[in-house]
Amino acid sequence: MNFIFVMITVPTLLLDEEKCRRNIRMMAEKARNSDVVFRPHFKTHVSHEIGNWFMEEGVEKITVSSLRMAQYFASGGWKDILVAFPVNILEIELINILAADIDLSVLVESPETVRFLVENLNSRIGLYIKIDSGLRRTGIPFNNPDAVREILNEAGKSGLISLRGFLTHAGHSYKATCPEEISRIHYESISGMAELKYRFMNEFPGLIISTGDTPTCSVMDDFSMTDEIRPGNFVFYDLMQTTIGSCTPDMVAVAMACPVVAVHPERNELVIYGGAVHFSKESITDASGRTIYGAVLEDNGPGWGATVQHAVLSKLSQEHGIVGAPSEFIDRFKPGDIIKIMPVHSCLTAHAMGGYLTLTGRTITMMA
Amino acid sequence: MNFIFVMITVPTLLLDEEKCRRNIRMMAEKARNSDVVFRPHFKTHVSHEIGNWFMEEGVEKITVSSLRMAQYFASGGWKDILVAFPVNILEIELINILAADIDLSVLVESPETVRFLVENLNSRIGLYIKIDSGLRRTGIPFNNPDAVREILNEAGKSGLISLRGFLTHAGHSYKATCPEEISRIHYESISGMAELKYRFMNEFPGLIISTGDTPTCSVMDDFSMTDEIRPGNFVFYDLMQTTIGSCTPDMVAVAMACPVVAVHPERNELVIYGGAVHFSKESITDASGRTIYGAVLEDNGPGWGATVQHAVLSKLSQEHGIVGAPSEFIDRFKPGDIIKIMPVHSCLTAHAMGGYLTLTGRTITMMA
Repeated sequence: MNFIFVMITVPTLLLDEEKCRRNIRMMAEKARNSDVVFRPHFKTHVSHEIGNWFMEEGVEKITVSSLRMAQYFASGGWKDILVAFPVNILEIELINILAADIDLSVLVESPETVRFLVENLNSRIGLYIKIDSGLRRTGIPFNNPDAVREILNEAGKSGLISLRGFLTHAGHSYKATCPEEISRIHYESISGMAELKYRFMNEFPGLIISTGDTPTCSVMDDFSMTDEIRPGNFVFYDLMQTTIGSCTPDMVAVAMACPVVAVHPERNELVIYGGAVHFSKESITDASGRTIYGAVLEDNGPGWGATVQHAVLSKLSQEHGIVGAPSEFIDRFKPGDIIKIMPVHSCLTAHAMGGYLTLTGRTITMMA
Repeated sequence: MNFIFVMITVPTLLLDEEKCRRNIRMMAEKARNSDVVFRPHFKTHVSHEIGNWFMEEGVEKITVSSLRMAQYFASGGWKDILVAFPVNILEIELINILAADIDLSVLVESPETVRFLVENLNSRIGLYIKIDSGLRRTGIPFNNPDAVREILNEAGKSGLISLRGFLTHAGHSYKATCPEEISRIHYESISGMAELKYRFMNEFPGLIISTGDTPTCSVMDDFSMTDEIRPGNFVFYDLMQTTIGSCTPDMVAVAMACPVVAVHPERNELVIYGGAVHFSKESITDASGRTIYGAVLEDNGPGWGATVQHAVLSKLSQEHGIVGAPSEFIDRFKPGDIIKIMPVHSCLTAHAMGGYLTLTGRTITMMA
């Protein structure tokens, strides 16, 4: 029995530090090779220690999804933080506190919000404008330059606002199922952004284009049409990303380790301690049309191996999970064993778990 | 502007204490009227303060879903706790620690697990046997008395194990769409349980039947065929329960209050600060076949009113939510306003939020 096995008695999120550092290095190199700014999204890991692995690769600018997260990373020594979430004006106090301390950038998509900032800021901030390049979640449609101009003009009324550029999240790439589709989405998204940049470059020089969801950044090698990339999920990857084609299964750097609490050979199922409060209820549809919440992994000492064919996390209650698998696989288990599972969406699973256990048995904490 | 509005700047889980206490009182009375033990499931609220509201209604026995939760409530003064989750033998140390201190009951469904307990217990515990009365999630099928007998015999080998009874969770009632269907599921489930009880009553006298999911306990008035009920969700109820028919919308005691960060009249949408990490990704299918994550509520000062027709939380990212609603409703909002939303599954939303704000502006904490 090996060291890490002895420690696991409840659902635990394992982190393979080596794979994780390799993912970070790969993306940092890609950004360097394309000569674009690498401003990774830290909402996936939300951990000082993992943040430091990025610092070691030369990263100085980061992205987060809430002011609270910005505060956490500012306390960890990060000095240039973009909150890539439409400004919540109710948090103006925290914006001013943070902006007094670090180089804080925020994201806007309406002139009203900019007017509010102009009137209420008392520290300098950077401003990105949220552009909808096709996802239709939020942002100004890229083909509406008048709305963009209105924001640029409003922002110009404050000496405390530095215009940074146009930001988009081509999150519809998450619906892609092959690299060709990702590539098509990327070029459509980026050409709309480029059009905007060139339209305003004389009046507002120096505005950049900031892009970069994980599927696009993983599949593409050439980022020359953009100025800054902000992928986040790639630090761990997950089952969804392997399905999209962003990564191979062996690049996924996290796995859940869950105690088996019951074995039901008569229906080819295991009951595990590990439910919605551990995995999150994020699901994908597998090749046979079933909704699944994770893929079972071969055990491999402290780590894990390949995914097991036809073995999936098929149901989730609050604390229970049901694993469905071929009988020869089910037969290997008894209550008290540990089973390892690749989560569907590592960002949400990490958030739910609140910390990591490395394969050498070290605990890594997250923002509380 | 009223007091509570001033306090809300980020996604916040509102709790209407009056509705919550009314739900608790109603269920406690139902149990008294049927002369059954009321052992409510505390996994929904996981809060000492809300637990005390049950104490005030005379509740002395509770149900939880993990040993950690049992430890939390033991520290809050509860002396009779059932962990209604198949025993995780890897946590035997914590079982022994808790059992030394309180009247702890655990749940088993396999002879191996009972043998493990017989060999490793050093404090007295109560034992429930998990019976599958139709949900097919976990447990021994009710029509397999031989498997039940094997467990009863194994348990008899330890002087530290007190046999308590047969437990089931008719969770397939969650799939019901009307009271008649819930009633049918209840009688099917309960008659299988009764059969088991009578089969073993001479050899193992005093074994009880423990049942009680929220839909069944809400819709039924007569529990005379059971001995103990363990509903949990009814303390708050939620959108799912209103859809099933367990409650009316005005009985739901929690609502999310979320800042509006963008308004998109051109597509009848609001972007809110409130995503999967706040609501959880639990969804239901609405009448028109759409997947939704919450129902928008009329605002009503510190509290909330009825659900707004055709206004739903239609998409969730990690921190964003998209509300789709008729244009006359969208037109009422601007960035910085607060919108109130009934969550799909209050257990998971409460777990994700980690605390409550009452309508009088008081914070109620949960297990960390």
